[in-house]
Amino acid sequence: MDGAGPVVVVAGAGALPALLIRALDAASRERRVIALKGFADAAVARGADRTMSLLDVSGILAQLAAWRPAAVTLAGGVVRPSPAALAGGVAAWRNRRELAELFARGDDHLLRGVVALLEEEGHRVVGAHEIAPDLLAPAGVLGAVSPEAEAWRAIETGFACLAVLSPFDVGQACVAVSARVVAVEGAEGTDRMLARVGGSVGGRLAGLLPALIPASRRAKPAAGVLVKSAKTGQDHRVDLAASGPRTVRNAARAGLAGIALGAGATLTIERDAMIAAADRAGLFLVGVDPARPGEVPA
Amino acid sequence: MDGAGPVVVVAGAGALPALLIRALDAASRERRVIALKGFADAAVARGADRTMSLLDVSGILAQLAAWRPAAVTLAGGVVRPSPAALAGGVAAWRNRRELAELFARGDDHLLRGVVALLEEEGHRVVGAHEIAPDLLAPAGVLGAVSPEAEAWRAIETGFACLAVLSPFDVGQACVAVSARVVAVEGAEGTDRMLARVGGSVGGRLAGLLPALIPASRRAKPAAGVLVKSAKTGQDHRVDLAASGPRTVRNAARAGLAGIALGAGATLTIERDAMIAAADRAGLFLVGVDPARPGEVPA
Repeated sequence: MDGAGPVVVVAGAGALPALLIRALDAASRERRVIALKGFADAAVARGADRTMSLLDVSGILAQLAAWRPAAVTLAGGVVRPSPAALAGGVAAWRNRRELAELFARGDDHLLRGVVALLEEEGHRVVGAHEIAPDLLAPAGVLGAVSPEAEAWRAIETGFACLAVLSPFDVGQACVAVSARVVAVEGAEGTDRMLARVGGSVGGRLAGLLPALIPASRRAKPAAGVLVKSAKTGQDHRVDLAASGPRTVRNAARAGLAGIALGAGATLTIERDAMIAAADRAGLFLVGVDPARPGEVPA
Repeated sequence: MDGAGPVVVVAGAGALPALLIRALDAASRERRVIALKGFADAAVARGADRTMSLLDVSGILAQLAAWRPAAVTLAGGVVRPSPAALAGGVAAWRNRRELAELFARGDDHLLRGVVALLEEEGHRVVGAHEIAPDLLAPAGVLGAVSPEAEAWRAIETGFACLAVLSPFDVGQACVAVSARVVAVEGAEGTDRMLARVGGSVGGRLAGLLPALIPASRRAKPAAGVLVKSAKTGQDHRVDLAASGPRTVRNAARAGLAGIALGAGATLTIERDAMIAAADRAGLFLVGVDPARPGEVPA
């Protein structure tokens, strides 16, 4: 974050913007915050320099031009606009040309469109991991529980699946059971993918087992693992896969044995709370080099 | 279906069992029907020789042994057991050894376990497509609407994605938009995948466009396509991907431009109704050779 001028955090939903603001403040780095209306947390919005509509593209560009920032970061989710986020219909109308350009690039790619637009305006756009590198998942077993052999097989399967999906622009996460993949994350996000894994056939039939078969005769059900990692060649400045305590809780609810994160290729939000949640639930939490998922970390 | 003895249809949910029974009757082929309690359609159950619990494995095996069938086919869904399907708890308890063996093979693979079990008992297990080959999707444009160039790109993308996913035992269907895949089907099935595509970000943001941007300035949104095909090397005797009129209605509701089916690698249930539904909704319906998805059928 060298260079004159502030670092601007354009703050969407979730805990990430506050973590970045805290990191900038800890480094005594000059910063400005634009809270996106309807997305940014209340605390971030209260402390922000501006609260603006996501749709007020002209206004945001004008504000950035006035601040002459050293770098801009887009942090936090802007998916699933809340009614509040869309209230600025009049502002949006004024910006219809910019919006048409963004949408023309593919509406799933809105954020990448924003990055391109900001760069065309001469701004340097940086990723959250450049501001707070310690948010990146490290390699190794992070909690008290270690994956068993069957889980390592699932981890390898999951990373291999995410790797082959890389050209298709889908799948920052999947759920693997041994050599099979049972769910691939699309636009719906990790939480909703985990919800459908929990409600799947396997889960329901498995629920019958105790009633039908004595434990001594029962084959131990194979361990499901959430594997999460950024796509190969993905622009890490936008939409870097992130996990937090809620991810752990949802994985536990889905009956999974643990979570494997791409080391250096995913963000961990509130990592201590995440590890504590994993330990409480008896789940493993492990960072794995996505290029060498078969290698058991020391 | 050569050989002495009847063809036995073990009838699960959906329209497929009735279609197979009709095909056997049309060919004047001797047949028997076991309706699976809680799964089989009421009309199939009424005309069935036996109505039995999915969990009454011993009973089903004994009945099959008594019939000495030329072939057995497992038709229709047995996923998401209804309460009625599970009512036979006592019967299940009697069969706990067989069930333990089935579940030990992986409960997602219950049907494949059943096939293996039937083969061990000396039965010949055939797929629905062997009884009624005309249910297999043919190659070519099936309805009144033809895919445009952008949709062909999505079709190629979708088939390529399903091909790379083949080793992972996931994905008999996906939704592609141009060169991107936005959803991959897991254990939840096509209908639920389409429901989440319809509710995704793209859909919601796209809904705003008319209010914001005059039509003349609007980039035409890229066409989403449902691509559905059996996995390479998949055992077509179980779980062959199937589509019907409901698939078309759900694809229309999700805002898709059309449906591409693996020719010879998917079943079309009530094809005429399916084509009519596609024509009504303005969707294309096309059968594509999964080995050569880039080839535009004549």
